[in-house]
Amino acid sequence: MIRLTKRVEFCAAHRYANPRWSEEENRRRFGKAVNLHGHNYVLEVTIQGEPAPETGMVMDLKALKDLIVEVVVDHLDHKNLNLDVPALEGRIPTSENLAVLIWDLLGPRLHGCALSRVCLREDAGSSVEYFGERGRP
Amino acid sequence: MIRLTKRVEFCAAHRYANPRWSEEENRRRFGKAVNLHGHNYVLEVTIQGEPAPETGMVMDLKALKDLIVEVVVDHLDHKNLNLDVPALEGRIPTSENLAVLIWDLLGPRLHGCALSRVCLREDAGSSVEYFGERGRP
Amino acid sequence: MIRLTKRVEFCAAHRYANPRWSEEENRRRFGKAVNLHGHNYVLEVTIQGEPAPETGMVMDLKALKDLIVEVVVDHLDHKNLNLDVPALEGRIPTSENLAVLIWDLLGPRLHGCALSRVCLREDAGSSVEYFGERGRP
Amino acid sequence: MIRLTKRVEFCAAHRYANPRWSEEENRRRFGKAVNLHGHNYVLEVTIQGEPAPETGMVMDLKALKDLIVEVVVDHLDHKNLNLDVPALEGRIPTSENLAVLIWDLLGPRLHGCALSRVCLREDAGSSVEYFGERGRP
Amino acid sequence: MIRLTKRVEFCAAHRYANPRWSEEENRRRFGKAVNLHGHNYVLEVTIQGEPAPETGMVMDLKALKDLIVEVVVDHLDHKNLNLDVPALEGRIPTSENLAVLIWDLLGPRLHGCALSRVCLREDAGSSVEYFGERGRP
Amino acid sequence: MIRLTKRVEFCAAHRYANPRWSEEENRRRFGKAVNLHGHNYVLEVTIQGEPAPETGMVMDLKALKDLIVEVVVDHLDHKNLNLDVPALEGRIPTSENLAVLIWDLLGPRLHGCALSRVCLREDAGSSVEYFGERGRP
Repeated sequence: MIRLTKRVEFCAAHRYANPRWSEEENRRRFGKAVNLHGHNYVLEVTIQGEPAPETGMVMDLKALKDLIVEVVVDHLDHKNLNLDVPALEGRIPTSENLAVLIWDLLGPRLHGCALSRVCLREDAGSSVEYFGERGRP
Repeated sequence: MIRLTKRVEFCAAHRYANPRWSEEENRRRFGKAVNLHGHNYVLEVTIQGEPAPETGMVMDLKALKDLIVEVVVDHLDHKNLNLDVPALEGRIPTSENLAVLIWDLLGPRLHGCALSRVCLREDAGSSVEYFGERGRP
Repeated sequence: MIRLTKRVEFCAAHRYANPRWSEEENRRRFGKAVNLHGHNYVLEVTIQGEPAPETGMVMDLKALKDLIVEVVVDHLDHKNLNLDVPALEGRIPTSENLAVLIWDLLGPRLHGCALSRVCLREDAGSSVEYFGERGRP
Repeated sequence: MIRLTKRVEFCAAHRYANPRWSEEENRRRFGKAVNLHGHNYVLEVTIQGEPAPETGMVMDLKALKDLIVEVVVDHLDHKNLNLDVPALEGRIPTSENLAVLIWDLLGPRLHGCALSRVCLREDAGSSVEYFGERGRP
Repeated sequence: MIRLTKRVEFCAAHRYANPRWSEEENRRRFGKAVNLHGHNYVLEVTIQGEPAPETGMVMDLKALKDLIVEVVVDHLDHKNLNLDVPALEGRIPTSENLAVLIWDLLGPRLHGCALSRVCLREDAGSSVEYFGERGRP
Repeated sequence: MIRLTKRVEFCAAHRYANPRWSEEENRRRFGKAVNLHGHNYVLEVTIQGEPAPETGMVMDLKALKDLIVEVVVDHLDHKNLNLDVPALEGRIPTSENLAVLIWDLLGPRLHGCALSRVCLREDAGSSVEYFGERGRP
């Protein structure tokens, strides 16, 4: 069993606000993050499987990248995450919620290998990881 | 003469659009950048001067950082650069225009040393540098 | 279950020496590390938990950072680890011993989520990870 | 139990081709990677064990590095992986196959601690990890 | 005057050998680099000019990247620099010679701004810079 | 004319204090830096010259590295810069003073090319550059 990780980047804008809270409450809870701002997100997708004997690869890296771009990046890159992403409606666009969304989008699209980990970095000093509903395999 | 560089980071949202062009023209010229999106900006400020004999320093690094935060970061961090920064009014918030603005804000506030270079990175793959009106000293 | 990682940096001085060994034995075992020297340490703290529905966060990143600074950084930053840190008395200040100390300091201070991993890098080429007494959860 | 990771780098040339496929089939499957090219590989080796009380270390970092250089780097650095590495004969020199080879070379040479993970990066955007035949410990 | 830098990466194989020297002399001079090996090259191209008032840009970053890919990357990426690049014939494929070649390829293709600097990194520990025949502008 | 840059790293301990000032004055001026602490220093040495036609190199990178290690690193690595480096006696071991010392040590040892720039980073957020007494060439 080998784990293969592909990294891609995208940039997006967002703000944190719970619509059921007042502006004051949101500012108290989220600080500066209630203002619209943005990030260069770094996304790492890890899959696991056995290398195919004839290619020596778990999955072709270009095919993996193309899938991530089609399924994830094209929906999040250069977007306002609060307004432009229907799948996030009703969810605050935190890295935690984004990681779960990305897992749910990518998991069903992988064949012959399994999604193992989604890691999303909002900046160089923080990251979240999600391993699916059953936790780390 | 020694050059001293301090790096700080901030994050902000922006979009590119020339108000005198149609939406179609803006999209043709700026591509995806007409959509609101955002970045983790990396700002490097370089000053030059002679180290003071009693401290061995061109300028105290903490004082330089505090100045950059007060004069620049507090005005750009967690902001929508198209709406929240009066000094950018009428200018498209490109890295080029931001670098000139940062120079104009910081230059008059330095004493005993000279501003030498403002470098701004929008992402890991690109940067702009500005050396003031007289070009590189 | 989501894992959230926050990175902080601090710098400190240390040397390696076992007081029960001769200077020669210490130099034979530890090489140049018997000399006082120092590092820019990079500390990654990983917690795990469920995001709160009303915030979309496992823990507020600023609160996590403030806790790490209060509980860890303020005790290690700009210190001589051999002399200035009572909690390290009798222990050689290796990254392994520091990681266990950091775990023991931070673990009891987390509520509503669990400490999952402490990773400490002494330089870009090496790191240690500690997952608590029961090993990796 | 502590995990200790040491990073080393080496550079090598390789191409991807299955000798049982035609040149056209290889190009269709592997794209540009059928051409001879090369990489700066980044190798991370992770071991796990208990720190020795008298040294505070799982293993001396210099001894670990020397072992990795002797057992791995000297056989792969500045080599054409398709022709110069007998242990790879009959295997396409993908990162997956290299990681398994590195595990098999290093594992038997460690005493008093266990090999835990081999991670190999071909470039900044991708990596593979291998945890041995029994999977992640 | 603003300087704008775009970074791209490519990977290639090469070896160092002067055909007028014996194998022994080449090995004595070039060490391990006489063996075929490879690198992930990082190329930074810096141009300088005045931002256009209607766009706020010295040059559109995507147009600059497309030009670098067409004029440089497509000729060097996934290539054996000793055999596959006619423009390098008779020249040892050192970073120095590559930087001059890249300058000569790119310079004539820029309009409305000037090529200012070509920087090529063979690995994280070394780089070369070329500023054209007249030296640094 | 080509510029060639080699990067090396070393680690050392130091503290800032002017012996003519009281402890209180030193703490007021230097803050936490009056405590003994340490860093992973990153040193970049840039030379400039014409590539030799028979090698395509300004200087052999390994020879440049060996020179930097002999002349600089062996005197600063794993040292207490306040006590163990005679050449720094009477000077506060700031990055500014270290950069001038490194220039003075290296410059006379280069033949067939010229020292162009010494850049020293104490941490990822700051650096100093020195171009010699005559300023930037």
